[in-house]
Amino acid sequence: MSESAAVGIGSAPPAYLDAASSEPLHPAARESLLAALDAGYADPRRLHHPARNARLLLDNARAVVAECLQVGPEEVTFTASGTEAVHRGLLGLAAGATGARGPVVLPEVEHAAVRHAAEWWSRWGSRSRAPEEGQPMLVGVDQLGRVDIAALAEAVRAGQPAAVAVQSANHEVGTLQPVEEAAALARDSGAGLFVDACASMGRLPLPRGWDALAGSAHKWGGPAGVGILLVRRGARWATPFPDDDRADHRAVGYENVPAALAAAAALQAVVAEREETGRRQHAMIDRIRSAAAAIDDVDVVGDPDLRLPHLATFSVLYVNGEQLVTELDRRGFSVASGSACTASTLEPSHVLAAMGALTHGNVRVSLTREATDAQVEAFCAVLPDVVAELRR
Amino acid sequence: MSESAAVGIGSAPPAYLDAASSEPLHPAARESLLAALDAGYADPRRLHHPARNARLLLDNARAVVAECLQVGPEEVTFTASGTEAVHRGLLGLAAGATGARGPVVLPEVEHAAVRHAAEWWSRWGSRSRAPEEGQPMLVGVDQLGRVDIAALAEAVRAGQPAAVAVQSANHEVGTLQPVEEAAALARDSGAGLFVDACASMGRLPLPRGWDALAGSAHKWGGPAGVGILLVRRGARWATPFPDDDRADHRAVGYENVPAALAAAAALQAVVAEREETGRRQHAMIDRIRSAAAAIDDVDVVGDPDLRLPHLATFSVLYVNGEQLVTELDRRGFSVASGSACTASTLEPSHVLAAMGALTHGNVRVSLTREATDAQVEAFCAVLPDVVAELRR
Repeated sequence: MSESAAVGIGSAPPAYLDAASSEPLHPAARESLLAALDAGYADPRRLHHPARNARLLLDNARAVVAECLQVGPEEVTFTASGTEAVHRGLLGLAAGATGARGPVVLPEVEHAAVRHAAEWWSRWGSRSRAPEEGQPMLVGVDQLGRVDIAALAEAVRAGQPAAVAVQSANHEVGTLQPVEEAAALARDSGAGLFVDACASMGRLPLPRGWDALAGSAHKWGGPAGVGILLVRRGARWATPFPDDDRADHRAVGYENVPAALAAAAALQAVVAEREETGRRQHAMIDRIRSAAAAIDDVDVVGDPDLRLPHLATFSVLYVNGEQLVTELDRRGFSVASGSACTASTLEPSHVLAAMGALTHGNVRVSLTREATDAQVEAFCAVLPDVVAELRR
Repeated sequence: MSESAAVGIGSAPPAYLDAASSEPLHPAARESLLAALDAGYADPRRLHHPARNARLLLDNARAVVAECLQVGPEEVTFTASGTEAVHRGLLGLAAGATGARGPVVLPEVEHAAVRHAAEWWSRWGSRSRAPEEGQPMLVGVDQLGRVDIAALAEAVRAGQPAAVAVQSANHEVGTLQPVEEAAALARDSGAGLFVDACASMGRLPLPRGWDALAGSAHKWGGPAGVGILLVRRGARWATPFPDDDRADHRAVGYENVPAALAAAAALQAVVAEREETGRRQHAMIDRIRSAAAAIDDVDVVGDPDLRLPHLATFSVLYVNGEQLVTELDRRGFSVASGSACTASTLEPSHVLAAMGALTHGNVRVSLTREATDAQVEAFCAVLPDVVAELRR
């Protein structure tokens, strides 16, 4: 395969710098997965011995996740992806809402999964309203990508929302969001607050104030195929999709015991080393932000301090983002381009547009737990050359 | 763990006889999974080298599944479970239906996943109708559990259904269903036909005539967390749930590349050995059916010949099903009790009730690819003793 040959040709050793899309499997997860493939294959709802083994493993996975996230085990649901956790979390609050079931209120910078769920609610959920009344209400952000709380307050007042969604941190630019302030607004209005914590779970403690919250295991080094849905004890939640008869009434489909256990093992490992990893990554990202900002006509976006530890985003004027990604890839650096959620369609990022930032020549660099200073220095050394080359 | 000590205490070596709930992971799947955990961790929609590797693996998995099932690759969608494939398959046909969007027509013996989807459609989908008009229309079966085609024809005529669902084979009693006849009825009425093939995929060739079809990888020796949704080229299908921006517009959530590849590898392996396995299992099941039928007041249910190769179900009068399962488990035989889909709730099986069969003391025995004649003979030897003991 010709692509294989290209890796390592550049001036630096290969560096995977797209952890925010997916973190490679943590060794602890790999070990748990292998053990559970053998011991956890049976249907945990059965009565026989292999089934009871599977059930014990599943309950263990749930207990570990609950402890890591400091919630009760009965608040934890394993879903099939972060996206499914988002859909069930947000739409479950909307479906469980009493009284007015208006639209969903959400900031403009939410992940596509949240936007799509809010749009679905307008079409399928709030059936008693005229379609134009039921459209999601989008709330603006400041130039760092932080939610405008005054605008959110106004939308919550005006919209009688079925639910309010606010992310813990932005997946494209890293900016942390004022979740507790949003929670107070939602609480006053009687609407449930959904928090998309997919970008931060495992890397930062959970924010407070949510009624439902979603995370995604492959973003912290767990396997693909596992999302975490938290529903606060006492929250009004009802299933928005077809029911099932599984071990957890908030989930559907055959329980993926090996993957759940692997996700839990990875979460336990990354939470144990979180402070140290976070400190190290925060400094590395500072270095990358400085190196990018030192290049002429480069716009480094997102909050410089109140941000995810592992992620930097910048826009390079006069350069095509896909070319930039391709040229960096040729030199061994794997980074993401454009919108974190619509790279396949090559549409400009709705997050950057909402911030009033440059959407052109945009690159997101994000560090795995194994990223080294040497990789970061090599990247910082290569970047100005690549930009200059592409601008010529 | 005290349960561990109990295994092997009985008179026979431990035998896992619940393959219809879940088949242990095929060695070919395990190998592919391990390789793909290392090579397929990245987001297949990205532009960099690890992402392109993941995309190649995913496309390869899709091509293998398509070849095994003799469909086009563009007709194959990987979902997160068989249940998700059922929900998306059936409800996607209903959502894509033009003209009258009445209820779903389905036999009484469909899996709970199909029933739940049909009920959801009545509540959320066919919004222009009064609730009582939109209820799913249930069609009866004969005493072998086979769909009453005349009744199905009548329901399709009367109901103007949004979609018609018929399983390929019953998951509890094994009886094969007249899918081609159902397909002709659906086609004449203009409704899409959904086929739940979760019980048979990998074990039998697919029936003909479906517009959408669902399978479940862990039932053929693939990993948990993978369903297969097929949508026929040209079928009217629209997403019933929130959209996503992934590689396949019919799926949501981060692509589970390692699991998809493992599922494909297992399918390839079992399809290659299908005829031989099927012949061997069919004979073993004949043996188990005879042994059960030879016990007084035991009712062996389902079609004796036109059935799944690996599954036998019988009801034992004067015996509690859970006690029977527990006692067999103590002697090393893992079998399923009661309804295949509601064992956790201990409700009587809706399948057996629809057939007019005894719902009491019901047990389902199903063979893995590794089941041996020695295990089957040991089971047949133990069964009369256990029944006699429990009846005393």
